[in-house]
Amino acid sequence: MIEGNYKIRIRYADTDQMGYVYYGRYANFYEIARVELFRKLGFSYKDLEDKGVGMPVIEMNSKFLLPVRYDEEILIVSRIKDIPKSKITFTYKLFNSEGLIVNEAKTVLTFIDLERKKPVRIPSELMTIIKKKFNDR
Amino acid sequence: MIEGNYKIRIRYADTDQMGYVYYGRYANFYEIARVELFRKLGFSYKDLEDKGVGMPVIEMNSKFLLPVRYDEEILIVSRIKDIPKSKITFTYKLFNSEGLIVNEAKTVLTFIDLERKKPVRIPSELMTIIKKKFNDR
Amino acid sequence: MIEGNYKIRIRYADTDQMGYVYYGRYANFYEIARVELFRKLGFSYKDLEDKGVGMPVIEMNSKFLLPVRYDEEILIVSRIKDIPKSKITFTYKLFNSEGLIVNEAKTVLTFIDLERKKPVRIPSELMTIIKKKFNDR
Amino acid sequence: MIEGNYKIRIRYADTDQMGYVYYGRYANFYEIARVELFRKLGFSYKDLEDKGVGMPVIEMNSKFLLPVRYDEEILIVSRIKDIPKSKITFTYKLFNSEGLIVNEAKTVLTFIDLERKKPVRIPSELMTIIKKKFNDR
Repeated sequence: MIEGNYKIRIRYADTDQMGYVYYGRYANFYEIARVELFRKLGFSYKDLEDKGVGMPVIEMNSKFLLPVRYDEEILIVSRIKDIPKSKITFTYKLFNSEGLIVNEAKTVLTFIDLERKKPVRIPSELMTIIKKKFNDR
Repeated sequence: MIEGNYKIRIRYADTDQMGYVYYGRYANFYEIARVELFRKLGFSYKDLEDKGVGMPVIEMNSKFLLPVRYDEEILIVSRIKDIPKSKITFTYKLFNSEGLIVNEAKTVLTFIDLERKKPVRIPSELMTIIKKKFNDR
Repeated sequence: MIEGNYKIRIRYADTDQMGYVYYGRYANFYEIARVELFRKLGFSYKDLEDKGVGMPVIEMNSKFLLPVRYDEEILIVSRIKDIPKSKITFTYKLFNSEGLIVNEAKTVLTFIDLERKKPVRIPSELMTIIKKKFNDR
Repeated sequence: MIEGNYKIRIRYADTDQMGYVYYGRYANFYEIARVELFRKLGFSYKDLEDKGVGMPVIEMNSKFLLPVRYDEEILIVSRIKDIPKSKITFTYKLFNSEGLIVNEAKTVLTFIDLERKKPVRIPSELMTIIKKKFNDR
């Protein structure tokens, strides 16, 4: 299993008139968490795109367990639990400053050739990093 | 079953640099679809909030089947398939202008007293409308 | 002068915890208004991009005169007051359902070759449409 | 003059299909910058709201000088140049990682009683902090 932590702060733009974070904003948080998990692994999502491969999200499941308020610092724990094949799955757990879990989610992503808009296999560079991490444990 | 159709147009703000709609924007589309479904039933979500009851989303599941492009008109078919109890479930199917399904989703919402931030039962006015619709069929 | 009207409805996603529309959302409304003004003129911004020309915003000025609430229908009156040269200026006036002006803004856009990322002159097709409209009046 | 620096990273959600940051996202960046400037001064915008005072934006002017790309780190230099009266003005300069200025902006905010929705004077606690900072220089 590969795991990374990242903290974000809730901004006014994230809130809605109920006084909490709008449910549509969590997708942005997951994006930040997985890109930062990649960065921590020494892998850059930007470089991947520069080489012509993109990672569209094909599935998202989210459970909103507790409301999240303006200005709170949220810890996002993201994980890759399985060695990816044609798809890569990230799970996320979000915790508020009291340590309570506020959201739990999963996203599934694939790999596409950005030019030809066709599915491709997971880039070998990424696969090598992931496999190495799994073996280290 | 209760069903409603609503069309939206994809805006530049909805897109990301992959050239498609950003996956986090679909939550906004589901929100529009369910509020407009309510409006078609003669029920106003705004009035509900004005009476002190809110409907937070507690679960969202989404499958991104085909990419959606800028300026496309998307038809959202939203449904309430079951008579709600403490929760209300909406399902959504999104179709592009060629009639192809591009996204499939489900959101589960509850009812809360906005003042006391406590769960409440489904407002009777809404329940009456929904039950009547289910009986009509 | 070229003028167009377009109505939008305020969504939950547009609001923030102050209970009004977040000030960062107005840019989206201006985008909708100017694209729809183009459409009304028989000109498609999407086609423009498909032909390789984009219109980045280089300046925005906005005055927030009255707060705007959830579910309100807002009328956007957008205008091209001068025949564009290398830049095109749109002005916007937003009115709530009581007819009160709630926001006043201006955006300046240029034309770029999307491939070479270089400034280009206003496409002749667009110029022809605009000049014709100005002469009609 | 009061000045603060804050760095943000551009996320996928910030980009649009032109491959740059969508012009409507900069308002979010200004929000982050001024709240963090306040925090650096020892003043919490959240506390202000908890005491019943909000700071709506009444004016925004923005110049988009250079396009900003995905994953770039942007330095925001924000300033309060004058001792506020009924309004407070922030200016912002955004720099990319090469040190080039990419955006220049100004926002004007007022103070309102969130309960009564009426304008109020600048909270004395904030005024004291600002005056002290101006005198220190």
